[in-house]
Amino acid sequence: MPTFSAQELKAFASKYFMHWGVSEADAASAADVLVSAEMRGVDSHGLIRLQSYYGSRLDQGLINPRAALTLLRESSTTLTFDANNGLGHPAAVKAMRRCIEKARESGVALATVRNSNHYGIAGYYAMMALEEGMIGVSFTNSAPLVAPTHGKAALLGTNPIAVVVPAKNNRPYVLDMATSIVPIGRVSVYQKNGQSIPAGWGIDEDGKVTEDPQKVLEGGALMPLGGTDLLRGYKGYGLALLVDIFSGVLSGSGFSDQVSSAANPGMARIGHFFAAIRIDAFRDFAEFTTDMDLLLDTLRNSAKAAGEERIYIHGEKEFEKAERAATNGVPLSDVTVQSLINAAEHAGIPFSSKPM
Amino acid sequence: MPTFSAQELKAFASKYFMHWGVSEADAASAADVLVSAEMRGVDSHGLIRLQSYYGSRLDQGLINPRAALTLLRESSTTLTFDANNGLGHPAAVKAMRRCIEKARESGVALATVRNSNHYGIAGYYAMMALEEGMIGVSFTNSAPLVAPTHGKAALLGTNPIAVVVPAKNNRPYVLDMATSIVPIGRVSVYQKNGQSIPAGWGIDEDGKVTEDPQKVLEGGALMPLGGTDLLRGYKGYGLALLVDIFSGVLSGSGFSDQVSSAANPGMARIGHFFAAIRIDAFRDFAEFTTDMDLLLDTLRNSAKAAGEERIYIHGEKEFEKAERAATNGVPLSDVTVQSLINAAEHAGIPFSSKPM
Repeated sequence: MPTFSAQELKAFASKYFMHWGVSEADAASAADVLVSAEMRGVDSHGLIRLQSYYGSRLDQGLINPRAALTLLRESSTTLTFDANNGLGHPAAVKAMRRCIEKARESGVALATVRNSNHYGIAGYYAMMALEEGMIGVSFTNSAPLVAPTHGKAALLGTNPIAVVVPAKNNRPYVLDMATSIVPIGRVSVYQKNGQSIPAGWGIDEDGKVTEDPQKVLEGGALMPLGGTDLLRGYKGYGLALLVDIFSGVLSGSGFSDQVSSAANPGMARIGHFFAAIRIDAFRDFAEFTTDMDLLLDTLRNSAKAAGEERIYIHGEKEFEKAERAATNGVPLSDVTVQSLINAAEHAGIPFSSKPM
Repeated sequence: MPTFSAQELKAFASKYFMHWGVSEADAASAADVLVSAEMRGVDSHGLIRLQSYYGSRLDQGLINPRAALTLLRESSTTLTFDANNGLGHPAAVKAMRRCIEKARESGVALATVRNSNHYGIAGYYAMMALEEGMIGVSFTNSAPLVAPTHGKAALLGTNPIAVVVPAKNNRPYVLDMATSIVPIGRVSVYQKNGQSIPAGWGIDEDGKVTEDPQKVLEGGALMPLGGTDLLRGYKGYGLALLVDIFSGVLSGSGFSDQVSSAANPGMARIGHFFAAIRIDAFRDFAEFTTDMDLLLDTLRNSAKAAGEERIYIHGEKEFEKAERAATNGVPLSDVTVQSLINAAEHAGIPFSSKPM
């Protein structure tokens, strides 16, 4: 894939957001999250969404470009924010920063954000805690696409869980996982390629497991992590529900099918949840990170299954991709590049980056 | 199944623990957790373990019956305890109680326990928070039985996640799930019945998915929630690792294969993690529980998949079983009754309960 300058991509995305009336600081914040997703190889949550998730909604007045994040309630350990329908990324960055500051004083802090929008990769905000040597947590709810076990209606988002923990010589543990088996975009890729999907990813309009991606996309739903009852899909359903409770209900935001979707257009009403935890509140930081290294090394160096060459720690692949992108530039697929050209045309600003 | 008086079962289990030198209060605490598991239908974690998990280890001096829970570190939001190799149940009850008391003051509190033992059902401790209208969280690590994705060595426990959230007219949401697909006991049941297991539950000694329960039990391992790569088993692996980090590393306890197992007998070195969160720190409690009802009702009342009659909320089945047990007595399988008779003989105390 051709690679592009991260600085140029960030500058373009910033300019794009500012075109729709977003402040320079908020635009830079959102651009950084999107380019960070590209660098980490999570292109489904990167620049390809610039117009579809953000620009088109700003253009329709469904996102308020100038909304300020307001604080509704505060205690020595908690923060309840309202994003007032502004962009999700700057709201989340500000909320997590305040959460980290509070945890510095109190040891532990939690923050919620209501009335927000799609905030990109959940892991970005959890990783902010690493600068302070803290554990970081980030959840968000999202458009309903997942059916509860025994049900067939898409009533839960792919609701990701991100938890980030520092180590010593190892890269940090960065869990950043949707609580569905796959995102809906993955099903679309199979559909476009005329391939059938593995049994367990999704159900049809009757709630039956189907290998036809078209049936998942039209009236069907995604399955939660675990899939069928036989493989304990009700656990993934429970985790998706957990994320909706923390992000949607605890925050006082929308939840379940209150969050906007194709069937329910309008304000997104997405909610987020964040936590920051000081490790030295529990034990000496150096002892903790030494033990983290031992745990991660034990797993990584353990016996491989037949045919496998490597055991990964969560986040490891993405750190390696980000390092390559920092050296060689950010790889963008043709589809993403075309989406940026389209976004630029739509906004009437130039996309002039050339492959490196 | 024949049913027994919960009071009589608790009295017997208490007496059994006291026989091995456990104090009356701690014995009552452990007995309550075990009988509660039976009442909730989680018989794998109930009285059948009385001798195998507890009595035999007390008898061998592998659990200290008189150990006191000591506090190693404390902040306004955190507690680091050492169980000093005492029974897991009373240590966990005391740690969670202190955690809840602290959360009453600070809004949020977290507690860890190191050098503990098997504490039974994780949900018991998370549910303690309900008495205060709080959200409760409980994790524990356990004997290594689960292989990391691409690996074949059993290096992670079935490490459960329990999170409990109150509602208004609905019963609380009680997620209490192992991060493996099934517990090892489930594989043993298939093996004893001469049945093959579903593909995805476990791997053989080469790390290959097997349907032969014998191969999982002898040199194989359980698979994490999700199972194979195709169904995103690395997410379940990530959750099992998360629980080990919070329960084992943050607490300063054993982790991975440091936790005792058949291959590594000795002190268990199990660690636990707890959290208590005041809901009214974020928003009015009544508004929160009203929204919880709406969310849970939305899911429960939604369209059923073909052939399904009911959508469950997590914990609902267990509440119904517990209510039946409170009225009709605690149902015990013949195997469990025989295990109690054996335990009684081993300890030289009478098991005189008769079916109701």
